Amino acid sequence: MAYFSFKYEALKDFSQEVFEKMGYTKDEAAIITDVLLTSDLYGIESHGMQRMVRYYKSIKNGRLKLGAEKEIVFETPVSAVIDGHDGTGQLLGHYAMSLAIEKAKKTGVGIVTVRNSNHFGIAGYYAKMACKEGLMGFATTNSEAIMVPTFGRLAMIGSNPLAFAMPAEPYDFLFDASTTVVTRGKVEVYNKKGAPLPEGWTVDANGNVGTNASEILKNIEQKKGGGIVPLGGVTEQLGGHKGYGYGMIAEIFSSILSMGLTSNHTNIGSTGGTCHGFAAINPAVFGDPEAIKEHLSTFLKELRESPKAEGQTRIYTHGEKEVEAIDRILRDGVPVNENTVREMKTICDEYGVDMEKYLGKVEL
Amino acid sequence: MAYFSFKYEALKDFSQEVFEKMGYTKDEAAIITDVLLTSDLYGIESHGMQRMVRYYKSIKNGRLKLGAEKEIVFETPVSAVIDGHDGTGQLLGHYAMSLAIEKAKKTGVGIVTVRNSNHFGIAGYYAKMACKEGLMGFATTNSEAIMVPTFGRLAMIGSNPLAFAMPAEPYDFLFDASTTVVTRGKVEVYNKKGAPLPEGWTVDANGNVGTNASEILKNIEQKKGGGIVPLGGVTEQLGGHKGYGYGMIAEIFSSILSMGLTSNHTNIGSTGGTCHGFAAINPAVFGDPEAIKEHLSTFLKELRESPKAEGQTRIYTHGEKEVEAIDRILRDGVPVNENTVREMKTICDEYGVDMEKYLGKVEL
Repeated sequence: MAYFSFKYEALKDFSQEVFEKMGYTKDEAAIITDVLLTSDLYGIESHGMQRMVRYYKSIKNGRLKLGAEKEIVFETPVSAVIDGHDGTGQLLGHYAMSLAIEKAKKTGVGIVTVRNSNHFGIAGYYAKMACKEGLMGFATTNSEAIMVPTFGRLAMIGSNPLAFAMPAEPYDFLFDASTTVVTRGKVEVYNKKGAPLPEGWTVDANGNVGTNASEILKNIEQKKGGGIVPLGGVTEQLGGHKGYGYGMIAEIFSSILSMGLTSNHTNIGSTGGTCHGFAAINPAVFGDPEAIKEHLSTFLKELRESPKAEGQTRIYTHGEKEVEAIDRILRDGVPVNENTVREMKTICDEYGVDMEKYLGKVEL
Repeated sequence: MAYFSFKYEALKDFSQEVFEKMGYTKDEAAIITDVLLTSDLYGIESHGMQRMVRYYKSIKNGRLKLGAEKEIVFETPVSAVIDGHDGTGQLLGHYAMSLAIEKAKKTGVGIVTVRNSNHFGIAGYYAKMACKEGLMGFATTNSEAIMVPTFGRLAMIGSNPLAFAMPAEPYDFLFDASTTVVTRGKVEVYNKKGAPLPEGWTVDANGNVGTNASEILKNIEQKKGGGIVPLGGVTEQLGGHKGYGYGMIAEIFSSILSMGLTSNHTNIGSTGGTCHGFAAINPAVFGDPEAIKEHLSTFLKELRESPKAEGQTRIYTHGEKEVEAIDRILRDGVPVNENTVREMKTICDEYGVDMEKYLGKVEL
């Protein structure tokens, strides 16, 4: 697929206008844009500009309600539950994590769950928000069912990422990963290439090892069975039950503690109902936060400097690849595939945004 | 290997006397015994009676100090850090989790970390303690380095289990798993059988896929390189970097937040230094705890009743296998292998315990 490369600042101004034209305020459009473009800067194309069309479609099909008012339905000094009333995932996520941070600064810990939301982008964005305030951050979400539980044949759990971040030098620790072995995005890449999937990623409609990407994706969409397997694989031999367990923890901290819809009931017809969970913890409730940060930084350095496997030159610590991607992409531009550009153009046509003004002339 | 079968009550009384004779008080011996035998009842032989000899040896080599006084070195209403001063893992774990529970009942959340401890048995035991009080429980620990980070060749992180439990009907949700693809115990089983290891469990001293169990175990012990790979396997293709990330979360909640020794520095020579992390969260800070419990129970039921893969008859939810194991083992007896019985006998000889009185005549 052909790729275009756009300057980060240009895409940012462009996205700002698009979301404002869709009906968001200036501040709201800025938050949504920042979440999407942070993903692109991290090198996670699947959750960046490419998702603009998804939000556009969700507004059209009624799963996402533009003017939704968020409501705090339960609150204590260490916790809150927010009903998003079908609002925008990024706005609810940003609000909920800010609330968790505020609570953590006062009490040491803040845990906030959200129900009736929509896709919120990358979980890591919210976990990382806490680091900027010197705190540890945690973020999770459920999603449309895509993970087949061990020994099952029907997707019952979402890709259910868990993200965790903690201040460290020279860069923060940032772990953000789906609890499935891979994300749907990776299966889509194989589908586009027409290549067989590596064994151990998916199961077919009967629950057997699957390798046909197009069939798997169609079956998931039509709820015919099959899907992506948990981290650890199809059986228990390589720990599939463990990935399934982590998926459950994501489910508990999003849908269960918010009394929202579990993954198997979300995103069906015009029902959205995605749920999220956020937590912030102040390391200062365990001692001197600077000493703790240095302790973590030392261990991360020991890991990076430990002996490499034959043929390998680096050991990464979590968050390092993202930092390097930011430098590279700010310098070389944000890669956007032609399909996404086409979708962006359709949206611009509807809302009367002059794409060329921001991104120059684009030949499709 | 030959197995003996002993009645649970008989083993319990036996273990009680052994630990009292070792120098523990009646209450202390009861806690240690309960942690070990709960593991046996769950069907996790590796962390049950079989470990008695490990504690015995740790006392002998000075890593475990019998009369150690625990010390709270930092405390807030939601947190505490305990220095175990080389005390007993089970006693420190039980104390720390009790403190976390007490805090969670008052504030909603309690997080307690422990440094300078020893092997504490199964993490799930402590997570489950919270359920008995209607709370969510979390427990983790670091351990002797055994996990090789992705692209590395030297073990830097422990088996670092994460355990999480939450009240549900008809049985609590209980997830307890090492963040390595398998535990050392599984590699030891292949070593005893002289069988090649399944690919994807270990790497050799050069960081290449390993299948020779005896060589792997020897190399880990002598810190020559190689070890068990993270959940997700040797490379990033099946998500090895994710298991490595979960191992890091365990490390952060044990050694980093307690300012203790990281896995790569523990259990070397006469240094112990194992660290643990515990948390309790009161679901009542998110709404009606009974409604939340019912919500989780419904989802667990939906999972168990969802369509099975071809050739499979059951989908398990986490904690279910343990409940079934308890029923079976209370009825049929606790299986103890002959090596363990031999070790128990040696310990009895030293401390003057009459094993036959509890377990009957044992022919070795």
